[in-house]
This record gives sequence, structure tokens and C-alpha cells, in this order.
Amino acid sequence: MQSILHKIVIEASPNQLFRALTTTEGLSNWWTKTEQQGDELTFSFGPNGEHQVVMTLLSSIPDKEVRWQCTGGPWVETGEFVFSISVDDRGSCLRFAHHGWEQPDDFYQHCNAKWGFFLVISLKQYLETKIGQPHPNDPSI
Amino acid sequence: MQSILHKIVIEASPNQLFRALTTTEGLSNWWTKTEQQGDELTFSFGPNGEHQVVMTLLSSIPDKEVRWQCTGGPWVETGEFVFSISVDDRGSCLRFAHHGWEQPDDFYQHCNAKWGFFLVISLKQYLETKIGQPHPNDPSI
Repeated sequence: MQSILHKIVIEASPNQLFRALTTTEGLSNWWTKTEQQGDELTFSFGPNGEHQVVMTLLSSIPDKEVRWQCTGGPWVETGEFVFSISVDDRGSCLRFAHHGWEQPDDFYQHCNAKWGFFLVISLKQYLETKIGQPHPNDPSI
Repeated sequence: MQSILHKIVIEASPNQLFRALTTTEGLSNWWTKTEQQGDELTFSFGPNGEHQVVMTLLSSIPDKEVRWQCTGGPWVETGEFVFSISVDDRGSCLRFAHHGWEQPDDFYQHCNAKWGFFLVISLKQYLETKIGQPHPNDPSI
């Protein structure tokens, strides 16, 4: 099994980062339009929001960790998404993991590149400058 | 062994992409200041260029593939860097691989995020708009 793994430092507090990862406002500002119903988060992609990804919240520890399982959309076959937050001299350190890939195939490599963009550019800029680059403003790769 | 693996599509010809990966002008415009002596490429990082990375060109196939081995700097312990180019409906497809990591440790995760930025943002923008974001204009993560 393979994982997509990124580590970045963001000049924002662990609480600000946690809120960007757990509120519909936060997620909509750096990933894509997000709606929540109970423990289910629905993310809309595509020109008219016709591609939906459903993530079920497995657990969360305030300011420390969030775990999702994809229960609708392209990643239902793969494993958990884990966002781990720690304190850093400059603010926060985020470790992102998307586990459970059988092979590092083209889709894995595409998603790895996309997560690089969404975390290093969009999430970081949203927290440091208030302006992210959520979908559909992401590069078409 | 683990690899860093990214796949992106760029609206540029395979030849334009190959030149961005094999000339000092190209590399300086999306990665960092580059100098070449024979088969050795020297990349300078840090505020005053004090951190140098030396890559030895192992092989290249015009418009198709470039292989480097790090022979000076932080990646001498890891394996090859391979840039593979193919034709895509929209221009070119680039598959990037940095092989030979013993563990997906913090340095692996940091480098994976950085490559996401340099490929998805800097290299792509350089080829599509002529303006990349080479070091030191990369996000400090």
C-alpha cells in the first residue's frame, strides 16, 4: 500500500489551521465548495459542481488531527485522509496523508500533484493572506 | 524504497518542456539559478546561493526523458530523478520521479510538497505564461 504524504509549515495558529480543515467556510476557501450534514462533508467539483466527493468525518481532535473516509466519489477504494497538526516556531506544521493506494498509478500521481497545489499554495495563502485559490481556480493539470 | 511521484499536464510542446528541463536558462526560470559544466548541473539555493545541489546528467532522450543523479547536496543518499515526457491532447504530460527514499520521513514529505509547487505552479506557469516562480520566490514551507 502507498500513501500520499505532504508536510508543510504555515504561519497561522493550530486553531486557525484546524478551523480551515473543519468548517465549511474554511474548506470552501481553499479546497472547493463544501456543504456539511452531520458527519458528512460534500465537496463539489467540476464546471457546474457535478462531481461530488463525500467524506465522512471519522474523528477529530481540536487543533491536532482530523480523519476522513471517502464514502462517495473517486477515493472510496482508498483509505483514510489524515490531517495532523503540530506547533511550529513559525506557527503550525501540517502533515497530510492519504493512505490506502494499491499502486502509485497515474491517478495517484495526479492527486499527489494536486494536493501539492492545494496545500502549499491554496491552504497556505488562505491562512496567511486570507485569499486561497479553491477549485475552480486550481491549475488544470 | 519509496519514490516521490507527480504527473502533470502542461500546455506546451514536448520540445519546450524538454528544453525547460535541460537548459540552464529553462531550469533557472522555474527551479533555481543553474550553472552547467559538462554533465554536471549546479543548482544554488538559500539567501546567498550558499546551498548547492549538484546533479550529474545520467542520460537524456530528446523530447522524451531526462535522468539525473544527485552527486552533491541533500539527496546524494537517494536515487535517480527521472523526468518522463509524453504527448498529451493539451500539449505534454510530465511524469516526475525521485526514487530511492528509504523512508517517507519528514524530509521526503517536505520535498514532495516542494516538488508539487515547483512542477504544478512554477514549471507550468513558466511554460504557459513565460513567468515561473523559481527559488527564492517559492513558498517557505
